[in-house]
Amino acid sequence: MAELSAHTPRYLTGDKAGLHEFLSKFDVFLFDCDGVLWSGDHLFPGTVETLELLRKNGKQVVFVTNNSTKSRADYRKKLEGLGIPSTVEEIFSSSYSSSIYISRILKLPENKRKVYVIGETGIEQELQSENVPFIGGTDPAYRRDVTPEDYKKIAAGDGSIIDPEVGVVLVGLDFHMNYLKIALAYHYIKRGAIFLATNIDSTLPNSGTLFPGAGSMSAPLIMMLNKEPVALGKPSQAMMDAIEGKFQFDRSRACMVGDRANTDIRFGLEGKLGGTLGVLTGVSSAEDFVSGDVKPHAYLDKLSDLLGSE
Amino acid sequence: MAELSAHTPRYLTGDKAGLHEFLSKFDVFLFDCDGVLWSGDHLFPGTVETLELLRKNGKQVVFVTNNSTKSRADYRKKLEGLGIPSTVEEIFSSSYSSSIYISRILKLPENKRKVYVIGETGIEQELQSENVPFIGGTDPAYRRDVTPEDYKKIAAGDGSIIDPEVGVVLVGLDFHMNYLKIALAYHYIKRGAIFLATNIDSTLPNSGTLFPGAGSMSAPLIMMLNKEPVALGKPSQAMMDAIEGKFQFDRSRACMVGDRANTDIRFGLEGKLGGTLGVLTGVSSAEDFVSGDVKPHAYLDKLSDLLGSE
Repeated sequence: MAELSAHTPRYLTGDKAGLHEFLSKFDVFLFDCDGVLWSGDHLFPGTVETLELLRKNGKQVVFVTNNSTKSRADYRKKLEGLGIPSTVEEIFSSSYSSSIYISRILKLPENKRKVYVIGETGIEQELQSENVPFIGGTDPAYRRDVTPEDYKKIAAGDGSIIDPEVGVVLVGLDFHMNYLKIALAYHYIKRGAIFLATNIDSTLPNSGTLFPGAGSMSAPLIMMLNKEPVALGKPSQAMMDAIEGKFQFDRSRACMVGDRANTDIRFGLEGKLGGTLGVLTGVSSAEDFVSGDVKPHAYLDKLSDLLGSE
Repeated sequence: MAELSAHTPRYLTGDKAGLHEFLSKFDVFLFDCDGVLWSGDHLFPGTVETLELLRKNGKQVVFVTNNSTKSRADYRKKLEGLGIPSTVEEIFSSSYSSSIYISRILKLPENKRKVYVIGETGIEQELQSENVPFIGGTDPAYRRDVTPEDYKKIAAGDGSIIDPEVGVVLVGLDFHMNYLKIALAYHYIKRGAIFLATNIDSTLPNSGTLFPGAGSMSAPLIMMLNKEPVALGKPSQAMMDAIEGKFQFDRSRACMVGDRANTDIRFGLEGKLGGTLGVLTGVSSAEDFVSGDVKPHAYLDKLSDLLGSE
């Protein structure tokens, strides 16, 4: 990809006037969460106070997460558990974004409205909230070995295993992924279903290291089909469109805050937001922000350095 | 890739003199199986007679399969079940090729000789036959959901789940693939284990359609690691080297027979065999063979057309 940003990122830590000026440009702050507000189960000091400061100054705060295993309600509980006050309305997850995309943007034929889900309960809850019918997901009937009968039935399109009303395959992180689920997703897509992914992060941080992410569930299908899914999470602009559709904000007065140049900052830049703000408490380094292909407008050592604007 | 073959493939069906001349050039015939000798459970008419003709004329016959779920002994039983006489010594599977590669070609340090297997019993049997120690595979201890404890133990390299002697990860077709197995493979490779795949065919034919193949097991790891495995099956030349190591044949006097230009014919051409022979009873069409990037030296409607040389 070509370089996304010709500007030189401003380093704002300790620069009271610069911080004040930067904050005054925006009415809306979109936050990536892990690596910005907390790491794993560890809340960064000053996170709560920083969010309070923004809210006190009339800024809209939105939590944007690619985590598809949780619904917005689950995610609010997670924020609460970490001591961060929030409302469900402030939360935007890839499972919610996917559900909105399916229910409001895709024009599915009357007889092709069902979604075959690879994923956990977060996706199911958000599909339910948008009245989208689905199969698969956490249904125990799909948590089993493939049998010789399955091959024949799937090949024949037998109604006992292939639902003719499936028009979408939605793939998110599934801790119960298995051969049968991948085989079914493949056949639904070959039969014409739209291939969607909540997000395609290849890895998932946990316990200070990495584990298979949602992208790892799509990877076999991408290889088999030689086709990429439409991904709804960051940095996909489908997610930005969904956020804008809900909050009706002025993009020039919005700022994306994140720790990863290639997803968070890219998401904001490609979405033509007025600002992007990098923090050094996660994946990207100062070097990445200053010399990489994807540069934020400004960056900080840590989010709570915003408190230095007061 | 650049075009592999400047020649124009000769169409030999019904050309008695041409067939006779072609056959006389070779002492060894390497056969792809499914799509050449049979399709699924259906043996093509004339297969047995054609193999008899070749053997009667003193040709060495080798069955080369990327199927890693079966050992050579299992595969011989499959051939027998279809009515094809064979010996274990004539069979070359990707599980066997992988085992030979690990035991005879890789120089593993004394304390890094264990293989972590994603795959079925065929791989285990071939590793055993080469006295290669392994873990994983069909062990029921790995056929379970991931737990919160697993994340912590894997992150910490806890000896109860991470074996410090693992120096190789070997990924083949596993009908019991799951999240835990992929997570463990990823961590072993990140800790320095060599990433091998029995083969990387993305799909597996069954019941007249396609299902996830061995490559679909490697796909999540390739995405997570941004790294390709060393693949031991066709068209990898590691497989050809292993076959040559065993049969000590003159490559200029050997011919690869197959139905797929991109794997079988490529395998023979890249291996600089004297000949490659395409058949139209499988994946590739006459158009593929004549106008594609990978052209065989000759092609036939079906294998048993070789009987027309008599």
